[in-house]
Parts: sequence; C-alpha cells; structure tokens
Amino acid sequence: MNYKMIANVIGRILCIEAVFLLPACLISLYYGEMGVIGPIIISVLLTAVVGVLLLLPKPGQSPYYAREGFVAVALTWLMISIFGALPFFLSGAIPNFLDCVFETISGFTTTGASILTDVEALPKGLLYWRSFTHWLGGMGVLVFVLAVHPMSKGSGQSVYLLRAESPGPEVSKLVPKTHASAKILYGMYIGLSVLQFILLALGGMPWFDNITTVFGTAGTGGFAIRGDSMGGYSAYIQVVVTIFMTLFGVNFSVYYLLVMGKIKNALHNEELWLYLFVQAAATALIAFNVRSFFPTMGQAVQQAAFQVSSIMTTTGFATTNFDLWPEFSKWIILMLMFIGASAGSTGGGMKVSRILLMAKAARRERKRTVNPREITVVRMDGKMVNDETMQGIWMYLSYYLFIALASMLVVSTNQFGVETTFSAVVSCLNNIGPGFGVCGPMGSFAEFNPLSKIVLCFDMLLGRLEIVPFLMLIAPATWNKRGLYRRPPQFDTPNF
Amino acid sequence: MNYKMIANVIGRILCIEAVFLLPACLISLYYGEMGVIGPIIISVLLTAVVGVLLLLPKPGQSPYYAREGFVAVALTWLMISIFGALPFFLSGAIPNFLDCVFETISGFTTTGASILTDVEALPKGLLYWRSFTHWLGGMGVLVFVLAVHPMSKGSGQSVYLLRAESPGPEVSKLVPKTHASAKILYGMYIGLSVLQFILLALGGMPWFDNITTVFGTAGTGGFAIRGDSMGGYSAYIQVVVTIFMTLFGVNFSVYYLLVMGKIKNALHNEELWLYLFVQAAATALIAFNVRSFFPTMGQAVQQAAFQVSSIMTTTGFATTNFDLWPEFSKWIILMLMFIGASAGSTGGGMKVSRILLMAKAARRERKRTVNPREITVVRMDGKMVNDETMQGIWMYLSYYLFIALASMLVVSTNQFGVETTFSAVVSCLNNIGPGFGVCGPMGSFAEFNPLSKIVLCFDMLLGRLEIVPFLMLIAPATWNKRGLYRRPPQFDTPNF
Repeated sequence: MNYKMIANVIGRILCIEAVFLLPACLISLYYGEMGVIGPIIISVLLTAVVGVLLLLPKPGQSPYYAREGFVAVALTWLMISIFGALPFFLSGAIPNFLDCVFETISGFTTTGASILTDVEALPKGLLYWRSFTHWLGGMGVLVFVLAVHPMSKGSGQSVYLLRAESPGPEVSKLVPKTHASAKILYGMYIGLSVLQFILLALGGMPWFDNITTVFGTAGTGGFAIRGDSMGGYSAYIQVVVTIFMTLFGVNFSVYYLLVMGKIKNALHNEELWLYLFVQAAATALIAFNVRSFFPTMGQAVQQAAFQVSSIMTTTGFATTNFDLWPEFSKWIILMLMFIGASAGSTGGGMKVSRILLMAKAARRERKRTVNPREITVVRMDGKMVNDETMQGIWMYLSYYLFIALASMLVVSTNQFGVETTFSAVVSCLNNIGPGFGVCGPMGSFAEFNPLSKIVLCFDMLLGRLEIVPFLMLIAPATWNKRGLYRRPPQFDTPNF
Repeated sequence: MNYKMIANVIGRILCIEAVFLLPACLISLYYGEMGVIGPIIISVLLTAVVGVLLLLPKPGQSPYYAREGFVAVALTWLMISIFGALPFFLSGAIPNFLDCVFETISGFTTTGASILTDVEALPKGLLYWRSFTHWLGGMGVLVFVLAVHPMSKGSGQSVYLLRAESPGPEVSKLVPKTHASAKILYGMYIGLSVLQFILLALGGMPWFDNITTVFGTAGTGGFAIRGDSMGGYSAYIQVVVTIFMTLFGVNFSVYYLLVMGKIKNALHNEELWLYLFVQAAATALIAFNVRSFFPTMGQAVQQAAFQVSSIMTTTGFATTNFDLWPEFSKWIILMLMFIGASAGSTGGGMKVSRILLMAKAARRERKRTVNPREITVVRMDGKMVNDETMQGIWMYLSYYLFIALASMLVVSTNQFGVETTFSAVVSCLNNIGPGFGVCGPMGSFAEFNPLSKIVLCFDMLLGRLEIVPFLMLIAPATWNKRGLYRRPPQFDTPNF
C-alpha cells in the first residue's frame, strides 16, 4: 500500500477545501453575519494546516494501482466530510457534531437529506457552503484535483482515482489523458452551470437563491435555502430547474461528443433514450394519477415532471409535498429512486445503464434456457459488454441489496413505520434526499437516533462512491502485504 | 413443440386431481354437510372428463426437451388451480370465482394467503380440500405423477418435468432414474407427514385439526382451519409444529443421505447450516426485542421461534399477531420472507442456497477487484459452481426484482399504504401467506381489488415455480418452429 501517495491526495484535497471555504466568509461579511466569520476562518485554518501536514511526506514516483485509488477515494471523502462539517459546528448553527457531519456528507454526496428543521434560520454564509458542497461533490472532488493539477506526470496512474470516483458500470475516459479528461468534464460542468444561472437570472431569481439553486441542480444535490424547497418560485423558474436537472442526469460523454460535432455518435446511446423514456412515461402516469390535485392538466404535468426529474436524477428538490400523493404515484417515485440517473452524470442511484445491462443479461439467459446451443452476447450501443463488467454489476447489486436491508434493520429501531424506514434508506443510499413519512419532502432527518444517522451517513457515501471504494477499505486483501497483491493488476494497460 | 405430450401430462394430472377430490366428499358426508357433496361430485366429474379428453391423443415416443417441460409445468399449474377452484365456487361457499381461484392457487403454491374473512364458516369437506392442496403442491404435482407412473419408459426425458417443478438453483436427482427419485422424495415426504401426525395426536389434537395442520406444515403452506391460526393450540402442539416446519424447510436430499447412512455427506451441506443459523439468530434477536410482550423469556423464545420458523420456511402459520410487534422484529420477518427455505425442500422464497451463492459470487468479485490476477472460483459444499448456474441465479434475481416492483405498482392502486402493498407482494411472491397491515396474520386478502388479486395469483405461481416456466410460456422463442430450436439442448446428457 502506497501510504505516501494516499496522504498526498488527501492533503491536496483538504487544501482545496480550505480555499473553497473562503467565499463563504465573504458571503457572511456581505450579509453582516459577523458571528460566523470567525468560525469559518478557524475552519479554513484547521483544514489547511492538516492538509499541508499531509503534503509533507514526498510521494516520489512509486507506482499506485486500483486498490490505492479506491482507498484514497474512500478516505478522502471521509476527511472532507469531517472538515467540511467544522463551520456548522464551530459557529453553533448546528449544535450536534454528528448532525453537522450528516449534513456535510449529505452535501458532498449530493444527497440533499437534511437534519435542519428550519433551514431559513441558517446564516447565508453557511447556506452557501452547504450548497457548494453539492456542486463540488457532483462532478467529484478528486476529478477536480485531476483537472487543476495532474497527479504524477507521465505515469498516468491517476486514472484509478477517476475510475474510483466516477459513477456507472464502466468508466470511459473522454480522451486518452486523465488530466485532460478531467479538465473537459469540469469545463462542460461549469458551462452548463453558468447557462442555468443566466436562465434563472432572466426569470428574476435573486442572485443568492440563484447560485445555491444552480449548485443544487448541477450536483443533483437538492439542498434548498427555503423551507418549501422550490415551491415558492415561479413556474418559469421551476421549468428551468426541471430541464437542467434532467440535463445534469445525462452522461457527460454525450455532451462531449456533441461539442466535438459527433452528433450521430452522441445520439447512438441506448442509456440516454431509456433515461428520457422513463422520465416521460413516469411523468405521464403521475400526471394522470394526480390530475385532481391541480386546477389544470398543464399544471399537473408540470408538477409531475418536476418531481419525476428531481427524483430520477436523485436531486431531491420538491415543489409540492408528494408524500400526500396517491400511493400509485408514490410507488413510481420509489422505483425512480432505485433506477437513478445515467452513468457518467452527476446523479446517483443504480444508474439507468446498470438496469439496462441487467435486463439484457437476464434476456440473454432466458434465451439460453430455451435453446442452450444458441450463443448470445450482451451488447450496449452496438459494442459487446464483457463478462467482467457484468460480474461487477452483479457484485454491486448483491452488496447494494445487502447494505440496504441491513441499514433498514438499524433504522427500524426508530419505530417510524415501514414506509419511513424503507424510504429513508432508499433515499440516502441512492443520494436523493427526501423520502416518505417522517423524512418526506417537507420533513427532515432530525428525529432519527444517532446510530441510524451514522448508518445513513455511510449509506450516502456508499451510494455516491458505488460501494467498491469502501469495500476495498475493509477488505483484508487490500491490506495484505504479500507479494501476490503487490504485482501490478491486469488492467494496468500501458495506453494511458 | 410437442403438444400431444403436454396434453398428456395435463390430462394425467387432472385425473389425479379428480381422484384426490373424492376424500373431501367423504369428509362432508361424515360431518353431514349434505349441501356440498353434490358440488364436489360435479367438480370431480368435470375434472375427470376434461382429463380423460386430454389423454385421448397418444403422445407416442417423440422426444421432448426443456422447453416442453417448462411449458407443461406452467400450464398444468394453471389448469389444476382452475379445476381445483370448482368445489368452492359450485358449493357457493366462496361466491366470487376469482376468489375461488385465488384461494386454490394460494393452496397449491403453498402460499396460504386467504381471501376468507371467516375461515371457520367453511364446510369441513372444503376445509379438507383447501388444506390438501398444500400437501400436494408442496412436493409437486408433477413429481407425484412421476412417482406413481413413469412418463415414457426408458427415455428418461421426464427429468425436465422434475427440473421445472423443483425449487432451487440446481436440481440434483437423488438417484439416476427420475421415476425412482420421485418415489423416494414422496416416500420421505409421507414418512415425515405421518410422524408429525402421530406426534400431534399424542398432544391430543383432534384428528381433523391434526390432518389439516400436517398438510399445511408438510407443504409449508399455512392454511389454518381456525380464525386465530395456531394461536389456540397448546404449547406442546405449537412446538411440534415449529420443529416440523423447520424440518420440511430442509433440502430433502439431506434426509435421503441420512437414510442411506451417509451421515457425513448429509451434514457436509453449507445451506443446511446457514439455514439453521439464520433461524437461530433471528429467533434470538426477535425474542430479545419482544421480551416485554410475554410473561416469561421462555414464552418469548417459543413464540419468536414459531414465527421465525413459520416465515422462513414460508409456511405462514401464526400463533400471535406479529403485525403488532416492534418495527425491528417486523423487518427481521420481512428479510426472512425474502430468504425463504432451502432448495429442494417444500418451502418457497429465494432459497438459502441462492443467497449463499450470490454472497460467494460477490465476494469472489471483490477479491478480483483488489487483485485482478487472482483466479478464484465459487465453491459450494466443496464443489465448483459453474458459470451457467450463476447466470441462472442472476437472471432469477433480475426477473424477481422486476416482477416484485411491477406487482407493487398494481397493488398500490388499493391505497392500503406502502407497508401493506409491499408485504402483500413479498408474501405472495415468496409463497408465505400473511403480510403486514391489511393482509397481516389476522387480516385477509379479501379487500384487494380484482386486478391486484389476479397479479397476486400470478406472483404466487411465479414464486412457486421460480419464474422460469412462466417465462418460457411467454418467450417468443419457445413457440418458434425453426429447426434451430428443435435440436436437443446441450444439457440433454445421455446418463438419465
């Protein structure tokens, strides 16, 4: 295990986190919230000092592989969450440190589940930081590091970091160089964010509301700065947010191909069409089902579309309390929670492509049962999907189901009822935010017992990093020093 | 497609069903229920006539393969359920024909979910038939046919019928001949049933209660003849039932090895130990959790053990209303519902061995992620599990989850709440019987709307036959006449 490299990665990221905390200071200064400036500055200093200390041991040019990548990513996310919680705790805005960490993990993992019962009481500086964690966590903190500064020049092993932090069953770099890929990703991410900011500004949204909404939409996070989430804004603003939530749930490689002018390639993407089809179908079914809740069909469609887009992209904004909707609509929402957004987007959930691949593998197996001699392969976008990818998906599904059930068992000790327990875990594990019942869109996670909060914190992290990095962290083999495990892994191909 | 063979199989089974209906007549005669004797005799005649008509075309010696086996099994189960529903309908005891079919499917699939709100009002003759369907469905109606009369002598292709009806990821015949295997299975089944009858009789259980309880236990069905299920019987009787439910949830090949004196082989069975361990652990957790509901710890353990055994073996008897237990205990019960009993037992659910194989495959994949060069295989009881078996399990899991979610969407239209909807589907799909809420142990399925009842009927059938036969029934390739599909499948090995 290359400990120096891991310390180096974490150190860099803590320094970056300290820098990103500074604007919160300025916001508090602007709004005259003198009481929180001190605590934020102390948080900045603490984070920066630990970051610099971790940077002291020089990592040298020793190699690092998949397991180092996974472990570095898992530890990094734990560290930024703990340090990111400091401003909430030191300012006394959230008195309980566990709650502070919950809120920060919920931010970085772009979940949007909140322990706040009165979000509008939080100082603006902290509201800014809370929403900004969404934006940074959405595209990935390590991807950001890779974008601003290549890790070890020429070696290209930083692909393991990209791989460990990016969502979806297969990670395809956009261009051969990891550094360049990360740059392109963040470029498109910033571009889309700015576009949304402009469109929201045209709708007359106040700039602070605007910027936090953009953070929440781009990262598919869902922290709102108002008690009624997005319910109080105009229909225009809601529609813009609906569209951008859907856009941020698309695989960014589609945008890259579009920008490159490869329109045919970009549209030859099965996941994209299934993703859009599911959204459209769910919107239609729900709009029909909740028709009587709204004065016009148009409004029913608009409200259904907002909620569907918000849940499927795992953002978690709400414009209405869908916990009061008929059970049929609630089940559709529950299913969208599981499906989630596209691979390679900022959204969470199991990802449309995983579901699609599972369906294809099941169909192939069904064919083989009818006729065992028929040779069939699973194809996606015309390309053959190899067995390792499928094995990885089944592993993911197995651990996913196990983690979900085990978490529900712990959360059930709150006695909030099966509906709340089930939806709380599903919501956190898929990085959505709201659930039903106690943790519904107008509720909060404040009342859950400490053990449940800890479990839900891990669910959010496991969901965002898709389980594997944390599995690696606790797998004995990762820490095994025998030579067998130190050999370069097979997929360390030289073309990076 | 070998239609004559399929008609022949269904014809035989309908004739057998007609014969098995006759004892119900005698019971009604004994209890002086003159009103139901006529309807039962009409049902017997109708079933027999259709059965004989289907036997008229001679199947000859033309071969049949896996797909014929699957289709024959699926159609057989549909037919016996419809004809088995006749006595309830013709006697007017259950006025709605859909309800009659629901109750019969619930019987044959050994689910035990009931639409009756007052079970004690049903005539004894019909109560007998209702419970007997459990006993016949438990070990399998086609297995019964194979036991009493080999299908096509010498060809041995009847293994496909055994394969299509027997539960679990891998079907191992006990001895090379299918006919002999089926005979041994039924021999052990009858032996255990008789043993339970004797032990219950020693506890002073009235003979009619005794025989119906044995049917419900042996088939892991769960239909009771009293409104409070098993709640009104003595502790001795409850303990005997607990033990026998657990015994009938064990893979019958374990008993075969024990009878053959191969004790070491019998105990070298990973599934058996995991099955017993899960039961013990769940009993301990629940007993601790519901301690305050009972006067002594002993009673808490006894009640917990009964409910755990009943749910995990998918029997569905109850001695107490576990719907009122703390949520933690209810979640444990929900998880036991998914796990189910052992492969090759009369129980339902996903089966312990499937869960175990999924866990092993996931662990292998985790190891491969840490060190891609390490070559690892999945082993069960010391033997290597081949890839086809694993692919079959993943296909099963995919369809299982899809069917469960789609069914929940339909059942949600009843507006009974997430807890009832979720548990109703889980309970039917895993052939358990009771769920929570409206369909809890003291509730019934009477109030569900017709569409939901139809969906739940199919869930019960899909659960009992483990999805594949019905997949084959609707797969276009099954009905494809091209030569490709008529070639003997690869696993048609000559050693049968």
